[in-house]
Amino acid sequence: MSDAQPLGRLLLVPNTLDHGSEPQPIDAVVAHGVLRQAAALAHWVVEDARSARAFLKRVADHVPLALPLQQIGISELPRPRKGSREGIAAAQWTALLQPALQGHDLGLLSEAGLPAVADPGSALVAAAHAAGLPVLPLAGASALLLALAASGLNGQSFAFVGYLPQETEARTRRLRELEALSRQWQQTQLFIETPYRNGALATALLATLQPATRLSISSGLTLAGGWSRTLTVAQWRRAPPLLSDRLPAVFALLAG
Amino acid sequence: MSDAQPLGRLLLVPNTLDHGSEPQPIDAVVAHGVLRQAAALAHWVVEDARSARAFLKRVADHVPLALPLQQIGISELPRPRKGSREGIAAAQWTALLQPALQGHDLGLLSEAGLPAVADPGSALVAAAHAAGLPVLPLAGASALLLALAASGLNGQSFAFVGYLPQETEARTRRLRELEALSRQWQQTQLFIETPYRNGALATALLATLQPATRLSISSGLTLAGGWSRTLTVAQWRRAPPLLSDRLPAVFALLAG
Repeated sequence: MSDAQPLGRLLLVPNTLDHGSEPQPIDAVVAHGVLRQAAALAHWVVEDARSARAFLKRVADHVPLALPLQQIGISELPRPRKGSREGIAAAQWTALLQPALQGHDLGLLSEAGLPAVADPGSALVAAAHAAGLPVLPLAGASALLLALAASGLNGQSFAFVGYLPQETEARTRRLRELEALSRQWQQTQLFIETPYRNGALATALLATLQPATRLSISSGLTLAGGWSRTLTVAQWRRAPPLLSDRLPAVFALLAG
Repeated sequence: MSDAQPLGRLLLVPNTLDHGSEPQPIDAVVAHGVLRQAAALAHWVVEDARSARAFLKRVADHVPLALPLQQIGISELPRPRKGSREGIAAAQWTALLQPALQGHDLGLLSEAGLPAVADPGSALVAAAHAAGLPVLPLAGASALLLALAASGLNGQSFAFVGYLPQETEARTRRLRELEALSRQWQQTQLFIETPYRNGALATALLATLQPATRLSISSGLTLAGGWSRTLTVAQWRRAPPLLSDRLPAVFALLAG
């Protein structure tokens, strides 16, 4: 790299929240200024190339793309095992960042919401920082924080802990641990589940948590039919939630 | 309430992230669909009435308001001591929710980003749930999650812990505690500071944290001149950050 060639930026581009559901209007969730910046990009690293092309077509309905879709460079993120970065060589990240190292802005896109938050991409962002590339997150929504806002639980202290264990005893232990952490720090604890297991998780929550613990469930936020409801566990037991097995849900608890 | 009268909804309306800075274009951060829903509301509960009117004027540049600004009902949230809900009577929340109880949609707006996340409003949302009102969060950005995405730190497990203590010894203890929690759970720990103390906090972080701990600093995200940078504490010590004392910053650490 010579000093004469400025580096490109890694732009974190937010997606809609309708992955796996009926498409929602892209401008219900993504700001026009962000659509403009996305339309200008010629290089992308994405979670899934096919759905990234679908995203760009939706962008193009509002802002003309700077290049024809076939001429836009789209590379996929490597797929490590969940929560692990092992097995991905540094050279692979450098290859993905090549357009930015050569001076072109590069977009990072995941399947829903913000890249690198409860979604792949953080290892690429870390590699960008290591390479000295400017990293620029564009404004966008995350279902996690919408669920937190809608919960009415503590928004001054909260944690997202990902997925709970699937095995019953391990899940029970983990829930007791989260309830204790929540009580100790008065910290809202958020977690998610694969949609088809949402109902089973809700059943386990009602069986395991203390009656006075407040539990918030949000389903399909920003989508038609999306909802958010906060009750004590005792109240939920009297009227258990009916959860879609296709819509993403976010669970949040705050122990009293 | 008779069954004949449907309840209004509490809509959580996202704000821009330029509070206290040069105004940014509202459509750089807020989606057009959200501007449309905000423009349709006749009743609001807000953190600050004056800046809520300024927000509605910015909305009106894109979507005509359903009512003239003077006819829109705007009530302010009561101001409890930080982190406390004491002293606010239940009747006060009910009074604020009155328009929704009478069947009108009601908007909740804070000074920046999402209401009720690191911002007032969660007690009103809790009261809405208690009253059986539908709560609908509209898609919007939170500086906390943009900073997390831009950090390249763990986005599968993270916590936001609000403000650190100002007193030196208490702050040092708290930082060691956060570093230990981060190491134990591999959990990114996020926190904020009042802008004019950002520089002092950065100095304290570099003095206190372990050299190998990764520290991400984001300043003025989505604003002109905004940036985000992640280095180890040892690297930051060789090139300490220059932080604006007017722009909001978000700090995030991940201990190795």
